[in-house]
Amino acid sequence: VIKRIAPEAEILDITHGIAPQNVLQGALVLAETLPFMPEGVHIAVVDPGVGGPRRPVVLRGGDGRLYVGPDNGILVEAVGRLGGIAEAVEPSRSEYRLDPVSSTFHGRDIFAPVAAHLARGVPVSRLGPPIDPSALVKLDVPRAHVEPGRIDGHVLAVDRFGNIRLNVGARDLAGAALARGETVEVEVASRCHSATVARTFADVEPGKIAVFEDSSGTVSIAVNSGNAARTLATMVGQEVSLRERRECR
Amino acid sequence: VIKRIAPEAEILDITHGIAPQNVLQGALVLAETLPFMPEGVHIAVVDPGVGGPRRPVVLRGGDGRLYVGPDNGILVEAVGRLGGIAEAVEPSRSEYRLDPVSSTFHGRDIFAPVAAHLARGVPVSRLGPPIDPSALVKLDVPRAHVEPGRIDGHVLAVDRFGNIRLNVGARDLAGAALARGETVEVEVASRCHSATVARTFADVEPGKIAVFEDSSGTVSIAVNSGNAARTLATMVGQEVSLRERRECR
Amino acid sequence: VIKRIAPEAEILDITHGIAPQNVLQGALVLAETLPFMPEGVHIAVVDPGVGGPRRPVVLRGGDGRLYVGPDNGILVEAVGRLGGIAEAVEPSRSEYRLDPVSSTFHGRDIFAPVAAHLARGVPVSRLGPPIDPSALVKLDVPRAHVEPGRIDGHVLAVDRFGNIRLNVGARDLAGAALARGETVEVEVASRCHSATVARTFADVEPGKIAVFEDSSGTVSIAVNSGNAARTLATMVGQEVSLRERRECR
Repeated sequence: VIKRIAPEAEILDITHGIAPQNVLQGALVLAETLPFMPEGVHIAVVDPGVGGPRRPVVLRGGDGRLYVGPDNGILVEAVGRLGGIAEAVEPSRSEYRLDPVSSTFHGRDIFAPVAAHLARGVPVSRLGPPIDPSALVKLDVPRAHVEPGRIDGHVLAVDRFGNIRLNVGARDLAGAALARGETVEVEVASRCHSATVARTFADVEPGKIAVFEDSSGTVSIAVNSGNAARTLATMVGQEVSLRERRECR
Repeated sequence: VIKRIAPEAEILDITHGIAPQNVLQGALVLAETLPFMPEGVHIAVVDPGVGGPRRPVVLRGGDGRLYVGPDNGILVEAVGRLGGIAEAVEPSRSEYRLDPVSSTFHGRDIFAPVAAHLARGVPVSRLGPPIDPSALVKLDVPRAHVEPGRIDGHVLAVDRFGNIRLNVGARDLAGAALARGETVEVEVASRCHSATVARTFADVEPGKIAVFEDSSGTVSIAVNSGNAARTLATMVGQEVSLRERRECR
Repeated sequence: VIKRIAPEAEILDITHGIAPQNVLQGALVLAETLPFMPEGVHIAVVDPGVGGPRRPVVLRGGDGRLYVGPDNGILVEAVGRLGGIAEAVEPSRSEYRLDPVSSTFHGRDIFAPVAAHLARGVPVSRLGPPIDPSALVKLDVPRAHVEPGRIDGHVLAVDRFGNIRLNVGARDLAGAALARGETVEVEVASRCHSATVARTFADVEPGKIAVFEDSSGTVSIAVNSGNAARTLATMVGQEVSLRERRECR
């Protein structure tokens, strides 16, 4: 769709591997990837509410980047980190969408054609009526509970290697005084595992569990040469506790 | 292979996610995607008969599009919808294939190099002897059985979200008088489920089953925020009945 | 990352489908794919040792190709087949890497930026201190044991079709006098199966097992219209015996 409208546009795919319906994973991947990418028109579509009341949005960031996607929170984390929102419009009745618009594939019928016209130079203001940036849907990123010797968080995402990403920041490890090199207890669904706080998964023996700051600056759990999600039998949304002291039988 | 022969060619991937051996899914995705794409040289390879007696083919459509792939039905649905076949040749002994040709990877050894030369302007007639378009293999797309209050069809494909695509058209729903908003019974493998005929999956509660016209105009089954193929424990080829009246115990 | 540094570079993806941690599969896919590709800067990253003592390397091949990746064996098989190593350097402290460098994502922080600068014309010698090519990590490709009527090998990789690639060359079949058309016994994990030595999987009936020379010139096992890895319940690293005579009960 983009190439028919803007043949000269160059399309860079960040990923097609976001777990179905995981808007939060999509938002975090977008926010963490964009600083490494050329500025452009950024489309993000994880869209479980397509066809329902959720709005499509086009945003212009303070740094000039343009964003297209559903108003379900997938864009705001990225824009917020990169200079904030300078302009927002609602393109659901734009002349630049395809016609007809299906109920289930706005990526094809609204987001791609609108983004292609942006790439060709159509100004944001031409794509729909302005909306109030403060009214955009924000993601509720759940916070971990941190106390000395203990962090209670949960699983935000699992990647294709089985690495488990937690809603725990590197400074939460410091806050709980879980220091590098220490052995900790990881509890998931009433089952406990022994892990090491490490710089990276390669710091532990093959088959062993490492808790470490990943390349996005958040805390992940991995098994060296293995699959942590399988080892811990965990999935997105589950509670995970990291503890200095053994509390499991 | 294409880039070595035609460095200036631009390659657009439609999908690498067709289920193994599902020629019909490949044919339908191609036919439904091409109207949204720039005209060009279109290669489609789902090729369970590679190395056997099935022929490779190059087709020129009435609208000028060019097609390359195995003669197993994957191309004809698309060409048929887009103006019919103006010319067909058989490139198995073309000077433009690679040499040697392997028994299992004609995508690399025949289809890609032939397509690359087409992109560079080699005329179709140079690629091999002409063949009779009416002799091309056609897909046997099974038809659903429709009667008032009941449709008996089956599963054509399952996508990565677990959405189930049926061999049922939107007008079959009308033909069976299964109207939007109605609760219907879905039977798969002697197990029954309650579903709602909806405009889209977002019209039902999370976890509930929707029967709806998808973005290609055919009827699909989805679970809002879930995976219908897992919920219904179904797979490609299975029979699915949609019924107004409850017949299951 | 590449596009920010070298916007004019064209990026060709070979695959994102290597099994996690399977350096050998990555090395073989690279070595078998490059002869069909344009010459360029070739990045390969299957990197279970990232963040540990393994070095990053940049290689210049005798034919002018450039290679970037971890020094874990993933590159040397390809370079060895394509003219050998003319120059090798160690870019871990290069001014061309990103700063900071994470402990777990050298693809982003070292390999991609270094490759992008190579694409822009920075000479290999500018990227780091020279290293001795003979000191590079080599892969230990396990050899099959061949005797008349029998081959004992094992599984190197399984692709998304379930096809099983063995560490067995086409000439090993000849060495064991297992001729095309013959029925052989395949033993995996003490379970035996009947298979046919064939030109390709399409030479056997649907559901039957074929042993054949694949498009890379090595011996694979496939099930026509099926999934051999599931049928044989096998996985990477397992021992597989091919035998003329039935030895299983």
